[in-house]
Amino acid sequence: MDLIYTLNIIGTFVFAISGALTASEKKMDAFGSAVIALITALGGGTLRDILIGSQPVGWLLDPNYLYTVLAALAFSYFFKKWIVKLTRTMFLFDTIGIGLFAVLGMQKTLSFGLSPAIAIMMGAVSAVFGGVLRDVLSNRVPLIFRKEIYATACLAGATLYYGLTFTRLPENWSIWIAIVVVMGIRILAVRRGWGLPGIK
Amino acid sequence: MDLIYTLNIIGTFVFAISGALTASEKKMDAFGSAVIALITALGGGTLRDILIGSQPVGWLLDPNYLYTVLAALAFSYFFKKWIVKLTRTMFLFDTIGIGLFAVLGMQKTLSFGLSPAIAIMMGAVSAVFGGVLRDVLSNRVPLIFRKEIYATACLAGATLYYGLTFTRLPENWSIWIAIVVVMGIRILAVRRGWGLPGIK
Amino acid sequence: MDLIYTLNIIGTFVFAISGALTASEKKMDAFGSAVIALITALGGGTLRDILIGSQPVGWLLDPNYLYTVLAALAFSYFFKKWIVKLTRTMFLFDTIGIGLFAVLGMQKTLSFGLSPAIAIMMGAVSAVFGGVLRDVLSNRVPLIFRKEIYATACLAGATLYYGLTFTRLPENWSIWIAIVVVMGIRILAVRRGWGLPGIK
Repeated sequence: MDLIYTLNIIGTFVFAISGALTASEKKMDAFGSAVIALITALGGGTLRDILIGSQPVGWLLDPNYLYTVLAALAFSYFFKKWIVKLTRTMFLFDTIGIGLFAVLGMQKTLSFGLSPAIAIMMGAVSAVFGGVLRDVLSNRVPLIFRKEIYATACLAGATLYYGLTFTRLPENWSIWIAIVVVMGIRILAVRRGWGLPGIK
Repeated sequence: MDLIYTLNIIGTFVFAISGALTASEKKMDAFGSAVIALITALGGGTLRDILIGSQPVGWLLDPNYLYTVLAALAFSYFFKKWIVKLTRTMFLFDTIGIGLFAVLGMQKTLSFGLSPAIAIMMGAVSAVFGGVLRDVLSNRVPLIFRKEIYATACLAGATLYYGLTFTRLPENWSIWIAIVVVMGIRILAVRRGWGLPGIK
Repeated sequence: MDLIYTLNIIGTFVFAISGALTASEKKMDAFGSAVIALITALGGGTLRDILIGSQPVGWLLDPNYLYTVLAALAFSYFFKKWIVKLTRTMFLFDTIGIGLFAVLGMQKTLSFGLSPAIAIMMGAVSAVFGGVLRDVLSNRVPLIFRKEIYATACLAGATLYYGLTFTRLPENWSIWIAIVVVMGIRILAVRRGWGLPGIK
């Protein structure tokens, strides 16, 4: 699970940077940026833990998550110009991050004895709700409600992972396959301008 | 309790439709609509459960709630024009819904050993907070903070129900009387343009 | 601890008034004002309790907090003009309130066995999150994300208090010293227009 833990930390780092950049667009000060970064990175898992009743919520028990967010904040502060140029790399890690958060969020929910449909949904919550909170706190209609099929990719990945648990594949493989599928859907969606229909 | 359960599901269905219609006004895609519908329908009970510490929160334990929201979503998608004409029927079920949610929310809080004042308040939270969250997530000042005496009706209904538990009335009767009072207050309020004063 | 309890109630009262005044600016009705007052006064502690898993959340167990908020609401309603002139007194109690909430929030988190870094952070959450929620629900970018070094003062106070627990000072003294430091930082910050830098 070491690689998984490392990816979890990297995902947290990238999500925190995305929060910090949003805060900077909104001309927030360092404290506001810290809060938005924290909520973007940890908000999804926090909501999942509160809903399923896993308290104290995960990141309170492992201070590395807090330190990762603080590091991401310092990093955004000193290297903002450089980050802005790295859109592709950021997008890559962000996509790995949501895939991973979706799968791990689902696993945790199943381990609390909840049903697969709920677990798949909690996977998507873990992956995307941080971004939703980021947007609400910055006073804009959440991006995810209007564009990309971000969350749909998470639901697909979590569902696939659940299916794979019934095969003889080793767990790590299932996780990776699910992540790759999330990434694939999302990348294709961005490239081809896919979107979901609304209610006319 | 079968009728109560059925009404609970109908209330959830109607609340979810109201969420989906709001999302459609804001030009959200299908995913955004699903989230707003879910939060409108289940947000109030979720907040109550988290505050009183009843976790996993109720609807995670009974997937029918999730399926009801998804059904409401599909229904909104295919019959939007028709729903818009049904304002009266929608209003009726919505009002039954808030009355019922207020009474059931209060009962649950009492069963956790909390005081009647807190239980009455949690009844109102169960009934109205979904709508508040819907408005916050759609980036508008919550309707309930500006117009109708929606929540006041819930407080009155929950208080009345609490009073009735000291009489010899069968429980189902008390629930129905409370719901009818909530409906009466709300319908009168809408008809006569009642509102609460603000702080000048 | 009696003085502490009294200050807690006074802090709650002052926070609730600040919420009620915000609601009145936004032309909310009495119910909206009650909700905003409640959330401003109790939202920070509520979030802390939910995150660390102390449920039912504190104020549900002691109805005095609810009554204090209702009293503050009535007070705002009848004496609005008078309160507006009392800016200095309000500011004083508000600052005592955040200092106290930061220290008590931190103590409670430590008593749940969480690490000092997390406890200091939860202290700041207890003190400032009510104001953040007030602003989000009133549909504006939270004040705290843009101006004052409000939260930084809380972090400093909570850190100092933690340091003082290792000395032989009686606990009450440590609490008071931390509160005075929070007040000092905040008053200086307001007087001299201090602020934190943003991410350019």
